[in-house]
Amino acid sequence: MKIVKVSGDVSIKRSVDSGTADQRAAVQKIIADVRASGDAAVKAYTEKFDRVLLSSFQVERSEVDEAYKQVSDQMVEVIREAAENIWSYHEKQQRPSWMTTEDNGTILGQKVTPLDSAGVYVPGGTAAYPSSVLMNVIPAKVAGVKRIVMVSPPSSDGKLPAGVLVAADIAGVEEIYKIGGAQAVAALAYGTESIQSVDKITGPGNIYVALAKREVFGDVDIDMIAGPSEIAVLADETAKADEVAADLLSQAEHDVRASSVLVTTSPTLAEAVQSEVAAQLSVLPRKEIAGRSIEDFGAIYLAKDLDEAVEVVNQLAPEHLEIVTGNAMGLLGKIRHAGAIFIGRYSSEPVGDYFAGPNHVLPTNGTARFSSPLSVEDFQKKSSIIVYSEEAIREHGAKIAEFARLEGLEAHARAVETRLKKF
Amino acid sequence: MKIVKVSGDVSIKRSVDSGTADQRAAVQKIIADVRASGDAAVKAYTEKFDRVLLSSFQVERSEVDEAYKQVSDQMVEVIREAAENIWSYHEKQQRPSWMTTEDNGTILGQKVTPLDSAGVYVPGGTAAYPSSVLMNVIPAKVAGVKRIVMVSPPSSDGKLPAGVLVAADIAGVEEIYKIGGAQAVAALAYGTESIQSVDKITGPGNIYVALAKREVFGDVDIDMIAGPSEIAVLADETAKADEVAADLLSQAEHDVRASSVLVTTSPTLAEAVQSEVAAQLSVLPRKEIAGRSIEDFGAIYLAKDLDEAVEVVNQLAPEHLEIVTGNAMGLLGKIRHAGAIFIGRYSSEPVGDYFAGPNHVLPTNGTARFSSPLSVEDFQKKSSIIVYSEEAIREHGAKIAEFARLEGLEAHARAVETRLKKF
Repeated sequence: MKIVKVSGDVSIKRSVDSGTADQRAAVQKIIADVRASGDAAVKAYTEKFDRVLLSSFQVERSEVDEAYKQVSDQMVEVIREAAENIWSYHEKQQRPSWMTTEDNGTILGQKVTPLDSAGVYVPGGTAAYPSSVLMNVIPAKVAGVKRIVMVSPPSSDGKLPAGVLVAADIAGVEEIYKIGGAQAVAALAYGTESIQSVDKITGPGNIYVALAKREVFGDVDIDMIAGPSEIAVLADETAKADEVAADLLSQAEHDVRASSVLVTTSPTLAEAVQSEVAAQLSVLPRKEIAGRSIEDFGAIYLAKDLDEAVEVVNQLAPEHLEIVTGNAMGLLGKIRHAGAIFIGRYSSEPVGDYFAGPNHVLPTNGTARFSSPLSVEDFQKKSSIIVYSEEAIREHGAKIAEFARLEGLEAHARAVETRLKKF
Repeated sequence: MKIVKVSGDVSIKRSVDSGTADQRAAVQKIIADVRASGDAAVKAYTEKFDRVLLSSFQVERSEVDEAYKQVSDQMVEVIREAAENIWSYHEKQQRPSWMTTEDNGTILGQKVTPLDSAGVYVPGGTAAYPSSVLMNVIPAKVAGVKRIVMVSPPSSDGKLPAGVLVAADIAGVEEIYKIGGAQAVAALAYGTESIQSVDKITGPGNIYVALAKREVFGDVDIDMIAGPSEIAVLADETAKADEVAADLLSQAEHDVRASSVLVTTSPTLAEAVQSEVAAQLSVLPRKEIAGRSIEDFGAIYLAKDLDEAVEVVNQLAPEHLEIVTGNAMGLLGKIRHAGAIFIGRYSSEPVGDYFAGPNHVLPTNGTARFSSPLSVEDFQKKSSIIVYSEEAIREHGAKIAEFARLEGLEAHARAVETRLKKF
């Protein structure tokens, strides 16, 4: 891990995969086929890509019951406790409809309504994370979404991972389909004979899933397209090098394109973390992945003071930020861009991945500049409410008509005047 | 305007323009050119499309002062009053950062932070609406965005409409560029020598602007891609036919692709509105546009009762909904999908376009199923806050490590255990 003195703009080597022209064409063809042929196309693509011919896509209750037998009781309890924490945090994001009343009788407000339906994509293979099921489903549940559909590509024996099924059941999903890839996204967006379409699709996936989500966006809503995971640790001399190194590696093991960065004011810590990373890396099961990630996208930035360090963090706009400094809370107000902020040495990033409660679906790739963690609001929409009173239209009607005429919209002016002329 | 009895699903003829392959290629080339050549490319495209060669893009203060002379004092006052109403409504959308504390010392929360910068696109020509400036800029201002940039294509004499400049000044915009089209979107997204990039681009535009926004999405945030305007009026026998007809026409005059629909339980009202629309249409300045819109996308749906009528409205998911029934407020809870809901006969839709306060940037094309009006939240983002206490990690650390191992992420488990082993 290189140690680099901060000077001016910190240019970050980012890695965005927006797909090749071939991949985009392939995804467009899959979506067109599913729209044209429905279940038959989904079945054919599932056979082609997942190497299993399914007679029916939907997961049966017996499969969920079977899954419980394959997960230890203790682990089931941990998943339940995590689900409760996630539920409890997300409930606090709930915001009621509101209104204001004016003396003249006018009422203005905002109505909050859950989406009718949501679809959650859960990747297959080694990226099939039960925690990801909880993090996507629970906000939708808290939001009040009545129909939540989960899709995930089956293994070649036609099954989904036990942990994923258990997590889905604990989160309260009652409709699960064993389909994946662009064909699953297309089925969720446009519906097939056996799968009704949904209003929004969330959840991570490979490049084909990401491209398919981008393609259907507008016909249905999607969450942000996720990039590789990122962590920045902002630390001074009070931080423990072994803890910082372990947290950096916990991101690095996700993906060779993950980015782990330390920003510190302490040359001593910089060097200590450098050797700790090397030492801990050498004994990690996923050391190939983590090693390449650290090599290609890892860095230790040495800043001259905390202000400069904070500025580096804001330029990075990291998905995860840990602040491990003497007065960590004092820096919170200065952090403008970060998906999740972990404060103090006990707030190790995995605490947030699984258990504490806040969502682990976070803006990556610098999009924390303008995006937020997945939340209850992502599964609700608002409607403005306008109850204009007779008194109000009497008082303001002529002005509204004048404004409409300034914009050349005569019918707008006349609509208001149709009322005015009756007074 | 046809009268149609509701039976089963109401299938709506929608009109989405997602552009031709040629248009998409043109937009991609413009964006690539602006990224490669900056100001020079923007200047060349402005000369090509707007037929004016500009030595500098930025609007000078003297041009704003000049604009004030071209707008009547009375109109300036109306714009000011509208701006105050819009400000006042949007302030109520503000939501503070929050936190919860637990007995063991853990703090969880959510920090709300404004975007650093936002760019507002204002269309040129006859679609240059001062109200659109207010509706896009004021939420960003209320959100706390420090740098707000406005762009709008100049007329061939190198000027912007006076009303637009006055509205921008009243809304508090200090940085305005006379550029439009895909080249303006590219300049806002990626920056040029003279224009710094922004974090989010909002505002309506033609198909090239819409395609460009879709293209840069991800590198910067965008608002929804706007489709043609829509209104649905839900009315019973208490509604006045002339008022309903006038409101339907106020949408129809926007665009030949606009959609104006009446859903009513009253055959008498249906017929009366039908003849009122014909009569009022014949004397409208924009009768060509409104006439085609009514012909192609207008309809009167006759429902057997209010429940059925409400169901039709929810299927339509209209941008604007007016409820003009005996007990209009009583129906509010049943409306699941609508961008803005106008209640009672005095809440004519233009009241919301200009003056009442709620935003007129609303989800079109059925996207009210999952989208919301433009709001203060669109110009802020959230960061999760996790301050995990020593006691909390002592109590829950082993469970978190277990969850990580279930997902095969050993470095995640070790990060937590690095703390645990020191207790």
